[in-house]
Amino acid sequence: MTTRPPADIGMPAAEIDTPALVVDLDAYERNLDRMAASLAGTRLRLRPHAKTHKSPVVGLQQVARGAVGVCCQKVSEAEAMVNGGVRNVLVTNEIVGPRKLARLASLARQAEVGVCVDDPQNVRDLDAAARAFGVRLPVLVEVNVGANRCGVEPGEPAATLARQVAAQPGLRFAGLQAYQGRAQHIQDVEKRREAIDLAIAKVRESVDALSRAGLPCEAVTGAGTGSYRFEAASGVYTEIQAGSYIFMDADYKKVEGFPSEFENALFVLATVMSRATRDRAVVDAGLKAFSVDSGMPVVQGRPDLEVQRASDEHGVLLLRDPAAPVRVGDRLFLIPGHCDPTINLHDWYVGIRGGRVEALWPIAARGAVV
Amino acid sequence: MTTRPPADIGMPAAEIDTPALVVDLDAYERNLDRMAASLAGTRLRLRPHAKTHKSPVVGLQQVARGAVGVCCQKVSEAEAMVNGGVRNVLVTNEIVGPRKLARLASLARQAEVGVCVDDPQNVRDLDAAARAFGVRLPVLVEVNVGANRCGVEPGEPAATLARQVAAQPGLRFAGLQAYQGRAQHIQDVEKRREAIDLAIAKVRESVDALSRAGLPCEAVTGAGTGSYRFEAASGVYTEIQAGSYIFMDADYKKVEGFPSEFENALFVLATVMSRATRDRAVVDAGLKAFSVDSGMPVVQGRPDLEVQRASDEHGVLLLRDPAAPVRVGDRLFLIPGHCDPTINLHDWYVGIRGGRVEALWPIAARGAVV
Repeated sequence: MTTRPPADIGMPAAEIDTPALVVDLDAYERNLDRMAASLAGTRLRLRPHAKTHKSPVVGLQQVARGAVGVCCQKVSEAEAMVNGGVRNVLVTNEIVGPRKLARLASLARQAEVGVCVDDPQNVRDLDAAARAFGVRLPVLVEVNVGANRCGVEPGEPAATLARQVAAQPGLRFAGLQAYQGRAQHIQDVEKRREAIDLAIAKVRESVDALSRAGLPCEAVTGAGTGSYRFEAASGVYTEIQAGSYIFMDADYKKVEGFPSEFENALFVLATVMSRATRDRAVVDAGLKAFSVDSGMPVVQGRPDLEVQRASDEHGVLLLRDPAAPVRVGDRLFLIPGHCDPTINLHDWYVGIRGGRVEALWPIAARGAVV
Repeated sequence: MTTRPPADIGMPAAEIDTPALVVDLDAYERNLDRMAASLAGTRLRLRPHAKTHKSPVVGLQQVARGAVGVCCQKVSEAEAMVNGGVRNVLVTNEIVGPRKLARLASLARQAEVGVCVDDPQNVRDLDAAARAFGVRLPVLVEVNVGANRCGVEPGEPAATLARQVAAQPGLRFAGLQAYQGRAQHIQDVEKRREAIDLAIAKVRESVDALSRAGLPCEAVTGAGTGSYRFEAASGVYTEIQAGSYIFMDADYKKVEGFPSEFENALFVLATVMSRATRDRAVVDAGLKAFSVDSGMPVVQGRPDLEVQRASDEHGVLLLRDPAAPVRVGDRLFLIPGHCDPTINLHDWYVGIRGGRVEALWPIAARGAVV
C-alpha cells in the first residue's frame, strides 16, 4: 500500500523521518551526465534499465539526456513507464500467460513497446496477442551469453527462433537481447573483461547465424553498469542497458576499475534507536528498509561503524571504537548493498540538495512484479 | 505504490496472475485455531505479532479467536492496525524522534497503545509527548534476554529504568518486553530450550529487581513461534507474541520438534517463463517477490525442483531430474524462506479455498517502516 512521504519539500534534511530512501541530487545528476558523456559521439544508444529506479520521473530525466527510452523486466513496470510519459520501452524479458500478453499488446498501442522470447510456443502466443490488438510487436530473441538464466543458446538456435519470429504477421524480428548479468559484479576487471569477451563471441556467433539465414540484426542490446565499456567497445552491441550507474551501491563499490567513475547517490537514512551497551548500537532500518542479498549496507563516512546484522526492522551496528560518538537519535546514511531490491521496498525518493529536501518522486513501479 | 490485485474474487486459482502472494485459507485457519487451542485454559494472553502479516484483516481474525490485541514494530504499523479496527496495540520497540513520538501519543487517544524503552532520554521524550497529547502511555522496559539487539541488561538496569518510567506523570510502567528473537530458529529443540531457559532466568532476575524496588510487574511479554511453548510453561511470561505461526515458512520448517504443528499456509505463486535448457527452468519471481535473507524458497510438492538462485525478477530452478515435467506456463507454489519480509513486498493476499479465489485482503501496512 502506498505510504505517506517521509518528508516535505523544503524541509531541512535533518528533519526527514526515518527510514527514508534519500537521493543526493547533485551526485545523481553527475552520474546521469557521466554516462551520457561516455557514450556521446559513438553510435551506441543508451537504454537504461528502469528495473533499478522504477520511476518514470527518473526515466524521463534519462531520456532528456539522450537515452532512447528505457528497459523494463515486467509488463506492470512498462505500464508505469508509459503512463508516466516514457515513449519507448523494451521489456528485456519473456512474458508468459494470456493476461500479461494482452496487457503488453495493448500497451503497444500507446507507445513503442518491445519484448524478448526464448520459446517457440511463446512466439505463437505473442503473435496471437499482437494480432488481437492490431499491433506489430518488435521482438528480440534472447541469447544465453553466459548468465545461464533465460535465453536460447547462441548460434543456430538463436537464428531458428528469429526465423520463426520473422514469419509471424503480428511480430517484427528486432534483434538480439544479450545481457551477461553474472559478469557485472566480478571484482577483478580482467576476469570481468574475459566474461564479456565470451559473451561478445556468443553474440557474434549468433549474428553470423542470422546473417546466413538472411535475417539482418538491427540491434544487439545488453550490458550493465559493471561491464558497459566492454560491450560499448565490442563493435557488435548497439545498445547499452546499464541501470545501477545512476545510484550505485555498496556491492558495486567493491568492483575494481570502472564503474568507479560513478558516485554513491542513494542512501537509506536511518536513526539510532538504541545504544544500550558500549559496543553496540541499533538503527531503525532492517530487512524491510534495505535488501541484504548482496551484503549488508555500509555506513557512509563512518568507517568506525559496521552493520553487523539485520532483522526485520533493526540494523545492529558494531562499534569498532566503543568511544566513538553514537547516540540515540543520531542519523546515519546507509549505502545499500544492492540498490534495485532496496528501492523496491520504498514508495518515495526523497531528493536532497544543499541539506534541504528538494524533491519527492513517487516510485510508481514499486511492487510492480506482474 | 499500491498495485492492482493479481486476481478477482471467484476466479479459479489457475487464473491468478503471477507472481502473487497466496494464502491457503484452510491451512491458515487451522493454524489460527491451533495456537488459540494451545493457550486455552492457561492464564497466558496471546498478542500475535502484526509485523508478520501487516494486515488488520488478519489481526481482527486473531482477536476474534481470543487474542488480546497485536504487537507492532513501527508507529506506522500501529496506525494501520488501529485504523483497521484493532483496539489494543503494543509497539514492541523503541520509538525515537519528535515526529514519531507525536504520532504515537496521538494514536493512544484512539486505542490502547503501549511502547517499549531502553534509554533514559527516550523516557523523558516519551513523557513529554504523552503529556502534550493528554494521554498516559503504558510503557514496558525492554530487557536484553540474549538477542543482543535492543534492551537494557537484566536485573538492576531494568529496575532503574522502570523506576524512571514510573516517576513520569505521562507514563505508566506496564511490565517487561523480553523477546529472544535469535533463539526462534535454532534447529535443535534442546539447544532452543537452553537459550530460552537463559532468557527466562534473565526475566526472573529483572522481576526480582523490580520487586526489590517496590514495582509490581504486571506483564512479561515475548516469545515467538519457534519457542512459545517454553515461555508459556515458564510461569513468568504472561503474554505470547508469536507471529509466523499463521503462515510458517521454509526456514521454520527446518526447525526440529514444535512448531511443526503449524502448516505452510503462505506461498508465492510463480509461473515458469523459460525452459531453454534440459536442466534449468526459470520462474517469474525473484528478489522482488520473495525475501532470501533466510535462504531460497522451496517448491511445494516438487522435491525434484530446487530454487538455485534468484536475481531481481527471476528464480532459477535446478531440475534434479531433467526428464521431470516442467514447461513454460507451468505454475509453482513457492514456500518463502522467510515470511515477514516476503509479505512486505506485496500489496495483496490472495486467499484461496477449494481451488478458487475467496478473498483479497489488502496488506495495509506494507512498506510501513517509519
